[in-house]
Formats: sequence, structure tokens, C-alpha cells
Amino acid sequence: MKKIKKILIANRGEIAIRVMRTCRELDIETVAIYSEADRTSLHVRYAHEAYYVGKAPSSESYLNIDKIIEIAKRSNADAIHPGYGFLSENAVFATRCEQEGIIFIGPSPEVIVRMGDKIKAREAMTAAGIPVVPGTDGEIETEEEVLAVIEEIGLPVMIKASAGGGGKGMRLVKKHSEVVSAVRAARSEAKSAFGNDAVYIEKYITSPHHIEFQIMADQHGNTVHLFERECSVQRRHQKMIEETPSPLMTAELREKMGNAAVEAAKAVNYYGAGTIEFLVDNELNYYFLEMNTRLQVEHPITERVTGIDLVKQQIYVAEGRELAFKQEDLKQKGHAIECRVYAEDPDNNFMPCAGKVYKISTPLGLGVRTDGYVYEGYEIPIYYDPMISKLIVWGKTRNEAIARMRRALYEYKITGVKTSIKMLERVMNNENFISGNYDTHFIEKNEEQLLSKAPKKDPIDMVIIATLIDYLDKIGSTEANTKEFTPAQSRWKKIPYVNHF
Amino acid sequence: MKKIKKILIANRGEIAIRVMRTCRELDIETVAIYSEADRTSLHVRYAHEAYYVGKAPSSESYLNIDKIIEIAKRSNADAIHPGYGFLSENAVFATRCEQEGIIFIGPSPEVIVRMGDKIKAREAMTAAGIPVVPGTDGEIETEEEVLAVIEEIGLPVMIKASAGGGGKGMRLVKKHSEVVSAVRAARSEAKSAFGNDAVYIEKYITSPHHIEFQIMADQHGNTVHLFERECSVQRRHQKMIEETPSPLMTAELREKMGNAAVEAAKAVNYYGAGTIEFLVDNELNYYFLEMNTRLQVEHPITERVTGIDLVKQQIYVAEGRELAFKQEDLKQKGHAIECRVYAEDPDNNFMPCAGKVYKISTPLGLGVRTDGYVYEGYEIPIYYDPMISKLIVWGKTRNEAIARMRRALYEYKITGVKTSIKMLERVMNNENFISGNYDTHFIEKNEEQLLSKAPKKDPIDMVIIATLIDYLDKIGSTEANTKEFTPAQSRWKKIPYVNHF
Repeated sequence: MKKIKKILIANRGEIAIRVMRTCRELDIETVAIYSEADRTSLHVRYAHEAYYVGKAPSSESYLNIDKIIEIAKRSNADAIHPGYGFLSENAVFATRCEQEGIIFIGPSPEVIVRMGDKIKAREAMTAAGIPVVPGTDGEIETEEEVLAVIEEIGLPVMIKASAGGGGKGMRLVKKHSEVVSAVRAARSEAKSAFGNDAVYIEKYITSPHHIEFQIMADQHGNTVHLFERECSVQRRHQKMIEETPSPLMTAELREKMGNAAVEAAKAVNYYGAGTIEFLVDNELNYYFLEMNTRLQVEHPITERVTGIDLVKQQIYVAEGRELAFKQEDLKQKGHAIECRVYAEDPDNNFMPCAGKVYKISTPLGLGVRTDGYVYEGYEIPIYYDPMISKLIVWGKTRNEAIARMRRALYEYKITGVKTSIKMLERVMNNENFISGNYDTHFIEKNEEQLLSKAPKKDPIDMVIIATLIDYLDKIGSTEANTKEFTPAQSRWKKIPYVNHF
Repeated sequence: MKKIKKILIANRGEIAIRVMRTCRELDIETVAIYSEADRTSLHVRYAHEAYYVGKAPSSESYLNIDKIIEIAKRSNADAIHPGYGFLSENAVFATRCEQEGIIFIGPSPEVIVRMGDKIKAREAMTAAGIPVVPGTDGEIETEEEVLAVIEEIGLPVMIKASAGGGGKGMRLVKKHSEVVSAVRAARSEAKSAFGNDAVYIEKYITSPHHIEFQIMADQHGNTVHLFERECSVQRRHQKMIEETPSPLMTAELREKMGNAAVEAAKAVNYYGAGTIEFLVDNELNYYFLEMNTRLQVEHPITERVTGIDLVKQQIYVAEGRELAFKQEDLKQKGHAIECRVYAEDPDNNFMPCAGKVYKISTPLGLGVRTDGYVYEGYEIPIYYDPMISKLIVWGKTRNEAIARMRRALYEYKITGVKTSIKMLERVMNNENFISGNYDTHFIEKNEEQLLSKAPKKDPIDMVIIATLIDYLDKIGSTEANTKEFTPAQSRWKKIPYVNHF
């Protein structure tokens, strides 16, 4: 066992701070890296040390393997935590770390390669007896091959990029006549997104639930699952809201899928934190979808219902320790929901809204956790994912959690940039969501209520107004400065309810 | 059962917001009241409606019964939540509510009267078979009486005001020669503090632990306890840090004391949330100290380990519902610690520091709850308790909770006023606290480490510097404005750790 004393966090934004929080609790020093666009970013301030890594585009900074390794060596970091995204599932990077004698906090490079390739992952799962969505066993080469597969598994089918992720290089085929163009489109998108045009075919599940299991495994063969996360509230295959337990789940199905997830991880000698994603249909059949060999964005809901700090466990596993708990020690307690809050305009096709944040009032109090990195005056850069924060609530029951999320969203006031908060509030008030009756088509099926298509009543852009008011506050008298600091809410409406008599 | 639709919160600060949060989650409308000094207070903004109640001194506002009842009627509130302090244990107020047909969220006026008088409370507990600290059964009249009691129970003893609380009207007597002056001093202090000079005698426990049990009871005779809170970290009899479970507690003692607490509540037909305070000596003998017939400041640590929203239960009980849980349904899970953060100078005799708050960076993330009400630019009034917020952390173990509290205190940056944060950090690093080996004399016993008596290295007042920097930021260029918004930390030290190469 090698005690880790200093960790370089090869990431930015909320996840960099998330990881550093646990490092502080473990008395581990932290090294931040930052791009040109992140000079004023909070993770730079939070760390014990911070190093400039390169220009704003990720390829020159957060994906710059040589530079990151150089900084790790220079700062004497004995481990690197990759967070999610960027280099977190990059086997070349994991291998370089190994060669340089730096601990990569994640699984072995071999596993990253194997599970990163959808077709190889499918093969490994099939060999381990885990159900996969019916489809091709490997890449498809010709149109005839496609038609033969369709003959066998029936329409509709999904054409998917072998190296894919995030919905890119995917095409749905409902009719035979669409086959040729769909394969071509998927190939060309895959080529430009991943530099690899290999595709394969899967049966398309009509009303699927996206349910994933959290895995934690040590380097001594101990593997447990930390139950499921329901991630079906998605737009364009991007998760928006996650919850645990899943409203669809039964105790029996949980045990079956949990065991399958553990088997899946064991089949590839997995260690560290990982996630097995499944599709579940309305008859509760489940199919392996993919494995993410890193921490998930939505890991906090699992932390909340199990009481386990997943980053702490990742570090312990990387140090070579044995897991301190067994499957039977783990229990789900209560219900947790996460909303991802984005700087975007949900009523304008989810257009990202980078820019300067003027005021933030952060939700606090009983059962609320906010993982963010944006502070007042911070300018959200255009170069990266526009997520502002993750809002996580816990309740004794699902209903209490939903009520608490509504309350927390009410408290969340951000001016200067548009955010997805209004949209999230609409979901929390949607009867299908409240009843737990939803699948991955939730947003399109409930578009009417969730997306405001009506022309705005007020033709003046409220963000501009807030910005102006802030500006006036700033240059105004002491009186105005006092107002500046009242919570954002007060700027949005007059206060007719303050009665003097 | 009467469904409560609108609640007037007869309080201010963090507890007013705490109560309103639960109201929002229950779809109950909230009515705030505010004094002249609280026009810009956050609870005014948070409420659905807010009414001016009177001048800044409490006697003219938050203690003004007639005015509060008038506002309740005018706003059609069907219930009043008194929070803690102010009118929360005022039987006259509870009676007025009853007469006016407004639900008082608390126990009956009779119970408030009975438990508010220390001597009557002692009598009730003795009758119910709950151990009380040996002492007089009633008020003492003459010096001879005092000496007779001392003859019986031995020195040292404590002279206490019958109507007392918060350490006022208390005198320790170690020698016979001190009796006369101690009784006189206690009487005179009690007279001026409570308008009542009655005193009584109790045996003085030398190394006592202050351990209290949370009680919840409905109006149908169901009473449970929600385990203990260890509140021995006190200064001048004021709690500073609380934790649950208590490091002193054994499973056996917990059951005995828990049962005693339930019996104590049942003995006086208690309903609502309440707290039975005990003194526990080193031999694990416990003695009833007093009952608080309201929500405690430190209730969140109980909420965290039990998963029960105590304010929600208070409202349910006031509506006449039966408790939805039994004793055997309640479990303590993990460990919770609360630190009270005050605007005060711990290195200068805990002098309160009212004034304008410039910047706040609030602790967030896994296992952290902050209950506060102070925002950037808010001026903490001189009229009320200078508590800024309560910082509550949870950990799977006590050690994890302490590490998390350290991390949270590191994240807590406040400029403009002095705070107790440094002092709280010293406690979290004190070996006696870490080992759980402490009693109510903890602070005096560890004064050397906890209170900095050394002349400050830097003769310039850092609060003034921060204030100046903020001012310069405010009038500066855009560049300076950006700096203004970087987290407070960056203002306290240069950033030599940001390396460019």
C-alpha cells in the first residue's frame, strides 16, 4: 500500500473542486492545472498549488498529456485524478501515468481500452453472460450485412458508432428504405467526432429506461455495487436529472441487475469506481449498454443514499487498500435527486449561454447539496461544458425529495446568464415525472409543458435588465450598494408584500 | 385534523428561514415579521408576505405580542411558529394564540409554565422518577436553609435562579464562607434579568457532560425520542459546538436516558418537539437539568442522523396528526457535528462584531449543510444575537465528520466582520476534542491552545484591510471588479502557488 500524499487533478470546474474537497478531508495536497480561460476559475484558488497548462481550447490544455505529466512530475504529485470527461477514459494517458510512476486514479489502461470500444465491450459482456441489446457481434462492413441483421432482429434498429458516446454517430432506422442513408450518416459523423468510422447495429428499444449501476472494486478482487441510478430524463442523449432509487425498480430486479453489474466488472478485472449502464424496457428486461470507467457526473446521489464518499474510495483503491465494506453492508436510505444546472436557454433550443454571472443565491439548508464552481463576477468561458452546478437533494421519501428540489430551485437565483432552472422546475411539477412514469422519451413526450414555445410576454430581455441593474447598483450610492446585495429575487419583482401599518 | 395553510414566523435570522424552507416544501404560505433593523434581512425576502412589526429593540418588535397577533389576524395566518428565543417559551403568548384561534406551534401553555419554572420542573421530574441533581426541593428563603442543604449534599453547590437560563443568576459555592455573598449575588442578578429573585440550590457536578435528548410527541399520547446531542463544548454556559452521537454514550446508557426523556415528556403531557437536558458525570450518572419546550438551535444534527425533518413534524403535530413513526423505526446513522459561527472576536473575550459583511464564501459539497441568513453586503444589526450561521456536517464516522468540518471551515471565508471560525478550527484540531475526551470545562481546560492570547504578529487589523480592499475593488476598473469577486481566500494571501512556465 502506497499512501498518496499529493494529487494532481487533471480537470476543471465543479468536478475539480469536488475531488479537492475529499483530498482536503484526507490531508492530501492538491495540484490544479488551468487553461488560459480558467485563470480566474475557483478550482485554481481551492488547490494547494496551481499550474498553467495551456491555451483555452481543451486540446491545448486539459487534453495535453505531455504538459500534464510534466506538471505532475514538477509538482511531485504521486497520483492524478482525471475527473470525468477530458482524459478520464483515455488509455494513452493512463499508460503514460503508469510509465512515469504516477498513480492514475482509475482502472488499468487495458480495461479502459476494452470498455471504451463498444463492440469489444459487447463481446466481453456476452462472454460473461450479461444480456446485451440484440444486434451485430462486431462492426458491419456492407449494406447486405445490415439487411441480414435486420432480418434477424427486426426493425426498428439503431446504427451506432463503435467509438461513440454522447449521442454522436447514432442513427435510428425505422424503415428498410432508410438503411443506406443512415449507415452513411452515422459513419461520417463517427469519423469526424472520433476519427473512427466503424459502426454496429443494435435493436432499438421503444420505451427504454436508462438505468445504471455504480460499481466499486479494489485491486484484491472485491467488487460491490452501490445500487442504481435512474437517468432517463435526457435531452439529445444527455442526462439532465438523475434519481435513486429508480421509480421503475423492484427489489428482485435490483438484485438481478446489481449482480449482473458486479459480474460485468469482474469479467474485465475492473478496479476503482465504474458504472454499468443498462437499458431497461417496460417488461423489465435489461440489456448492457456500456461501461463508464470513471466517476460519473451524477455520483452524488449514490453518495447520499449510501453514505459512501466515492472519491475517497477511489483514492483508497488507488493506494491499494481493500474495500472496507461488503455488499451486505450497503443499504439505500431515502431518496436522492440531482438536477444539472446549465448556463443555457431551454426555451431557445438549449442554446449555451456563456458570460458573466452577476449574482448567485445558492440553495442551502436541510437535505440540499450544491456542487458548483461559479462565483459572483465569474465569467463562464465558451470553451467548455456550460454546466454551472449540480443540485442534489435528499428526502426520506421520493415525494419529500421532489418537494425539497422544488424549494431548492426556488432558492436558486442566478443573474447575468440564462439558466436551465425554469425548465428543471417544470419537470418537478410535471405529473408524469411526479408519478415516476417516464422513460428516455420523457422530454419529447412532455414538450408542451416543459418547453415554453410561446412568444415572451415581455419583449425586453430580462438578463440584460438584471445586468443593467447590477451595473447601476455598482456605480450608485451606498443605498444602491445595499440593494445590490439583497438576494437576486428582489430584483425580479417589486415587493408589494412588505406591508407597513 | 386541521390542515395549516399559512404560518406566521414570529422570529428572524437563520431560524426564520429554516422554518420557511420546510413550509415551502409543504406548500404552506409564510408570513414574515421584521423590525426596523431587519428591513434588509433575508427572511423578509424569503417569505410570501412580510410585515413591519416595530422598532429595533426586541421588546418593541419580536416580543410585541399584541402587534404579532394583529399581523397574524390581518394576514390570515392560521398558525404561528415561534422559532427559538423571543416568544418561543412564553406562556402568555401561547395563551393569546389559543384565545385568538391561532395555532401555536409548540406545547400547551400549561406545560410551558410548568417546565419554564426550574423548581416546578424539578418537582414534576422527581414525581415521575427521573433523577435530578441533589438539592433543594423548592426555593430557599434563609441562609440557615442553605447551610442545612449543604450539610446534607456537601460542597461544592450551585445557586441558581428559579426563572433562569443562559447562565444568568448562577453562582458556584466551593467554601462555606462564600454562601452569603453568592446567594445575594445570584438573587440580585436574577431579579434584574428575569424580574424574579427566587433561587434554589443544586449539587455542583465537577466534570459534567451536557447531554440532551430530542423528544417528539403528538397530541394522541405517542412520544418518542430522537437520541442524544452532546453539547459540552460551551463558553459561559452557551453552546458552541454540538455533536451526535455523544462520544461518552453507551448503547445501554442511551436506552436508559432515552426512556427517562420519554417518561419526562409523558409526565407533563408534552406534545410537539422538545428537549430534555441532562448533566452526566464521569461515572455515567445522569441528572435532569431542564426541559426546553421548543426547537433547539442544534436540531439539525438530529435531523441529519435520523433523516427526520423536525420542523415538518412540529407542523404535523400542530395539525393534530399522529406521529408516522415509532421508537423502533428510528435509527442513528453516522455522525453529525454542528458549529455555531458568530460575528465575534474569540481572541478578544468573544466581543460581538456587528457590522457590514463584505464577502462570504459558503462551505458546500458532500455532507455539508449551512443554515444561515447573512448575505454579501448585509449589515449584522447590533440588537440581536450575533450568530451568522450554523455549519452542520455529517460523516460515516466521527473522524470523517471532524475531517469534513475542518474542510468546511477552511472553505468558510467571511470578510468585513470578525468571526469565530478560527476558534472553531482550533477546536477541530484539539486532541482532547478529537479523542472525544471533553466535558463542559473543555474551553477553560484548553484555553492555551484555543484562545490566542499572544499579541498579533501583524499590527494592522485584517478586517479593516479586507474592507479597504473591497472598497478599492468597488471603485476600481473592470479588472479590479473581477478580482473583487474571486473568493475571499485570495485576498488573504498572495498566490505564489500559481506557476507559469
